[in-house]
Amino acid sequence: MIGVGKMGLAMAANMRRAGIQLVVYDISRKACEAAERLGCLVASSPRAVAEQTPTVLSVLPNDKILWDSTLSAEGIAAGLKSGGIHVSCSTVAPETSRKLAEKHKDFGHIFVGAPVFARPDGIAAKNGTWCLSGPSAGVEVAKKILQTTCSGIYEFGEDPGAANVVKLCGNFMIASAIESIGESLALAENNGLDREQVMKMFRETIFNCLIYKGYGNRVASRKHFQDVEHPGFALELGLKDIALVLETASKSSPQVPMPLASLLANRLTASKNLGRADQDWSAIGLHISEEAGVDVSEIVKNPRPE
Amino acid sequence: MIGVGKMGLAMAANMRRAGIQLVVYDISRKACEAAERLGCLVASSPRAVAEQTPTVLSVLPNDKILWDSTLSAEGIAAGLKSGGIHVSCSTVAPETSRKLAEKHKDFGHIFVGAPVFARPDGIAAKNGTWCLSGPSAGVEVAKKILQTTCSGIYEFGEDPGAANVVKLCGNFMIASAIESIGESLALAENNGLDREQVMKMFRETIFNCLIYKGYGNRVASRKHFQDVEHPGFALELGLKDIALVLETASKSSPQVPMPLASLLANRLTASKNLGRADQDWSAIGLHISEEAGVDVSEIVKNPRPE
Repeated sequence: MIGVGKMGLAMAANMRRAGIQLVVYDISRKACEAAERLGCLVASSPRAVAEQTPTVLSVLPNDKILWDSTLSAEGIAAGLKSGGIHVSCSTVAPETSRKLAEKHKDFGHIFVGAPVFARPDGIAAKNGTWCLSGPSAGVEVAKKILQTTCSGIYEFGEDPGAANVVKLCGNFMIASAIESIGESLALAENNGLDREQVMKMFRETIFNCLIYKGYGNRVASRKHFQDVEHPGFALELGLKDIALVLETASKSSPQVPMPLASLLANRLTASKNLGRADQDWSAIGLHISEEAGVDVSEIVKNPRPE
Repeated sequence: MIGVGKMGLAMAANMRRAGIQLVVYDISRKACEAAERLGCLVASSPRAVAEQTPTVLSVLPNDKILWDSTLSAEGIAAGLKSGGIHVSCSTVAPETSRKLAEKHKDFGHIFVGAPVFARPDGIAAKNGTWCLSGPSAGVEVAKKILQTTCSGIYEFGEDPGAANVVKLCGNFMIASAIESIGESLALAENNGLDREQVMKMFRETIFNCLIYKGYGNRVASRKHFQDVEHPGFALELGLKDIALVLETASKSSPQVPMPLASLLANRLTASKNLGRADQDWSAIGLHISEEAGVDVSEIVKNPRPE
């Protein structure tokens, strides 16, 4: 496994429990030590990992790091034998996956796109949804490994970028739900209603699902602080994903106008510029409240809960 | 009961089954006859109904009809005795409910706002969510009657307009979900993915709730036809509700900017102008597809399923 940050480490813990041998690499020494404590072997580079295994999983934060970790001289492609499989679990542009798949093909490798809907605490509870796409031989191997760490696996055909498209669709729909909840509760609040009481009804009835329950509570109570102990999804990463959505829309054939995605990109950008890049991305709700004339200065000053 | 159209009739059927005596009025002779077949008595005006009962339910299509049916010479207010209760089940502007409550107060009546999240087929299955607000004495009576026709009742305090605010919040969130699903599936489709396969994953996992299941299927399969046998919610009525959302936002204190509601109003208006006023409001998905360069002309020509 290349990348044993929060997500990778949670996956590695489940895989170790299932009896899978793991060799890992991470640029952070601390991350490697945490993996070592799970019984993983540590190698000195992505290439050194790939030389020791027929299947490499990468769990990396963005397109550039995935690209470099795959194609540099000390990268995965240089170490993997012919017939080897690279399962990429990162949320990246579909185009990045397609190009990496081409490069791997030149080496005789198989590339599988395998992004996941889950936070590290979800992975720890084996509660996540994986989207897989790529050559079926690779997808079959990826499924066997990933089913040790999750509840649901969905396949989307041979295009190695397809799973990333689905992941972007999902993150766009999540951000849309947050915006919708935020505007809705601002309307309720400025008409004298209690935000949490209104949200309670919706999450118990017509919007009784994971996204509205989790983000509904955050937006209603304006609790957006996130760090390792308060799991969330950083607004900065959310902005990156919505930017990827719009980039993918503009590279689609035909191109796809996505006015709601544009609205979200503006909302997330404004929220980042207001100093909320490190909060959970539901913090766009604060901007909605500010625009509605609600005084949220205390929460803005002290976002960290007691 | 004033108004025994599709919704009123479904409610009346449940109430009759629970042993409640009903006197009804509807402007349509056919509607009155259908109610008569359920064992309801038919009166000649809203006033004539109100003269025979301490509690009137109105189930009317819009603000103007509710206003006239309440305050005209042959209206509810003229017939109801002092201490009588008017339970208004329509989706109208919160301001309309507040003004009607004031007028009723002058007569010594109690007004209760009681909009519902359900279609007639949902009511028939006793599957609906009622939002109630108004003086507690009236809310208690309304609850006793309405629990014969539904699964969930939520109370939102004394303001007679509050329940209507919540109803508008909900309809706004539903329309937002439809737009989000539509843009998302357009991105998926123009990247070679199957719309229904992508939606299947979302409705089985992170968006596993009534709204995403129902509208997700409609948008994915582009089935937007609706009439009495194919239950839906007419796009024209959806546009009316989103217009009410924006009107309420602009009359709130402070006013509430709702950029997503504005986007939806434009989308629904365009769809109406394209001749889809009578289809289910998920038909905004067709406009999203058209804008994404997808040929949906066959569905536009023949929206009615086989």
